[in-house]
Amino acid sequence: MSFDRLINNIVDRQNPSVMGLDPTLDYIPDSIKRDAFREKGETLAGAAEAIFRFNKGLIDACKDVVPAIKPQCAYYEMYGVAGFETLHRTIQYGKENGLFVIIDGKRGDIGSTMTAYATGHLGLTQVGETRFPAMGGDALTVNGYFGVDGITPLTDVCKQEDKGIFVLVRTSNPSAGQFQDLKVGDRTVYDIMGDLCEEWGEACPGQYGYTGVGAVVGATWPQQLSELRARLPHTFFLVPGYGAQGGGAKDVMGGFDKRGLGSIINASRSIMCAWKKTGKDGTDFMEAARAEAVRMKEALMEGIGTITR
Amino acid sequence: MSFDRLINNIVDRQNPSVMGLDPTLDYIPDSIKRDAFREKGETLAGAAEAIFRFNKGLIDACKDVVPAIKPQCAYYEMYGVAGFETLHRTIQYGKENGLFVIIDGKRGDIGSTMTAYATGHLGLTQVGETRFPAMGGDALTVNGYFGVDGITPLTDVCKQEDKGIFVLVRTSNPSAGQFQDLKVGDRTVYDIMGDLCEEWGEACPGQYGYTGVGAVVGATWPQQLSELRARLPHTFFLVPGYGAQGGGAKDVMGGFDKRGLGSIINASRSIMCAWKKTGKDGTDFMEAARAEAVRMKEALMEGIGTITR
Repeated sequence: MSFDRLINNIVDRQNPSVMGLDPTLDYIPDSIKRDAFREKGETLAGAAEAIFRFNKGLIDACKDVVPAIKPQCAYYEMYGVAGFETLHRTIQYGKENGLFVIIDGKRGDIGSTMTAYATGHLGLTQVGETRFPAMGGDALTVNGYFGVDGITPLTDVCKQEDKGIFVLVRTSNPSAGQFQDLKVGDRTVYDIMGDLCEEWGEACPGQYGYTGVGAVVGATWPQQLSELRARLPHTFFLVPGYGAQGGGAKDVMGGFDKRGLGSIINASRSIMCAWKKTGKDGTDFMEAARAEAVRMKEALMEGIGTITR
Repeated sequence: MSFDRLINNIVDRQNPSVMGLDPTLDYIPDSIKRDAFREKGETLAGAAEAIFRFNKGLIDACKDVVPAIKPQCAYYEMYGVAGFETLHRTIQYGKENGLFVIIDGKRGDIGSTMTAYATGHLGLTQVGETRFPAMGGDALTVNGYFGVDGITPLTDVCKQEDKGIFVLVRTSNPSAGQFQDLKVGDRTVYDIMGDLCEEWGEACPGQYGYTGVGAVVGATWPQQLSELRARLPHTFFLVPGYGAQGGGAKDVMGGFDKRGLGSIINASRSIMCAWKKTGKDGTDFMEAARAEAVRMKEALMEGIGTITR
C-alpha cells in the first residue's frame, strides 16, 4: 500500500536510482536491430522486437545494481500494438528479475476512467470469474489536473494491491514553470499539487514514513527539489532529468532525507547509450550500461553515504 | 493542420456530437461476449475481442449519424496488449468508415516524450526507410501541465499531418474545481490553460476560424462553457459529460458559435447502453444505439437550428 517494496530494493542495493527505459531505435546497437528485422521485418513489429531485446540486455546487465526500472509508455505506443506488447514484456521481465517497475504513463482522467487505468496498469482486470494482471506494474506516474476524484481510484488499488503512484508536481522540462510556477496566493501551482500529494497519501501510509502517493520532481530544479523535500515529508520523489537533461549528483542531494531515502533518481539515455562512448560497435552495450549504472550509483552514494530504513 | 476535417464531417451530418467508445464488459450484450469467449477464451483476449465486435456494431449502426468517435484509451489498456490491439482495430475501422477519430488518451509529458506520443498516435513512425502509422488517430486529447514544450511536438505533427489536439481546460468531473478553479491573479487555472490554447493554436490555423489546438470543457459546467466560448474564439471544444454524467442539450448550447460550430458533444454510456432500456436481450443494440444517437442529434439541433461553415 506504499513504496515500502521500492524502499527495500533501494536499501538492499544501496542505490537510489532507477533505469529509465525510453528506447528509440537510434539507441539500439546495429546487431540487435539487424537480427530483429531479419526475423520480423523492417516494420513496427521488427522495431518492437529490437527494443525488447535491448531492454532485456539492459535488465540482465543491471538488475543487481539498480532497484527499479521505468519504461516510458510513449516510446512503446510509438510502435503501435507491437510496441505495447514490448512494454508488457519489459514489465514482466523486470518483475521476474526482482526489479520494482514504474510505468511512466502520466495518466490522468475522471474517476471512472482512472479506475480503468488503475486496474489495467497496477491492479487486476476481471473477466468472468477470473482476475488477470493486464500490465502488472508496481507504480504508475499520474497527472493530478482532475483533482481528488482522479486520484481516489488509484489509492484504492494501491491499498488493495500494494502499489504506488507518482503525481506530477514539478517537471524537469525547460517550460515547466510556464504553468507550474504560477502563484495562487502565496503558493505556486506545484506547491499546491505537492500539498495535495501529502493529503492524498494519507489513504495509504507506509512503514518507513512514506505513503503510496509520491511526486515527480525534476533534477533540473535543485532549489525546488530541496524545498519540496522539506515541505512534503511523507511523499517519495521520482526525480527525472539526471544526466542527459542536465542534472548532476550534487543537484539531487536535496531530494534525500537523513536516511538517504525520499528520492529515486532516474537516468535513461546516459545508461542506454553508454555503449556509444566506448568506441566499439555496440556489442558491448551491456557492459557499458552496467558500468554507467555503477558509476551513477557511486556518484550518488558519495553524497549520501549509507542508505538506512 | 486544424479541425477542418472534423468541421466538414459535422456540417455534412448536421450533428455536432461524437460517440464515445469507453466500453466495459457490462455494456456488451451477452450474445457478443458468449461468441467472443468461445473463440478466444474467457480471458483478456476474449474480452478484447468482444469489445471490438461491440464497437464495430456501434460504428456500423451510427456512422451516417455521428461525425466522429472517441475511444478512451483507459478502457482498452485495462485489457492489456489485447485491449490495445482492439483500440487500434477500432481506430482503423472508424477511419475506414469515414469517421473522424479522437484518441482520448490525455497524454502529457516533456518535449522529447511528447514527440513520441504525437508520432505514435497522430503521425508516422519511421523504421528504416519506411514510415508507418502506428495508431492512426485524427486527434489526441492532451494535458498541458508541462507548458509549451509539451505542446510544440504536437502542433508540429498537426501541421504536417493535418491532425488536431484537445487540451484539458475545464474537466467534467465533480472535483474539477479543486485544482482548476484556483485563482492566479484575476484568472483561474482553467482560464490560463484556455488562454494558452489560443496562443498555442496560432501555429496551426484553420480555414473556418478554429485552429488545430482545441480544448476539453465539460458539459457539467454550463456557465464556464459559455464564458470560455466567448474567451477563446479560435479554440474548438470537445465537451464530455453529456448524458450519463448529467449534462443535457440546453447545458451545452453556450459552447456553440453563431454558425453552430465550436463544440463537439461527447456521449458514451447513453449510446452504448441504449439497448438496456428496450427491455430486450441486447440483440437490438445496434438499432437502440442508432435511435439514441439520432435522438441526441435532434435534441442538440433543436437548439442550434442549422450548422453552417
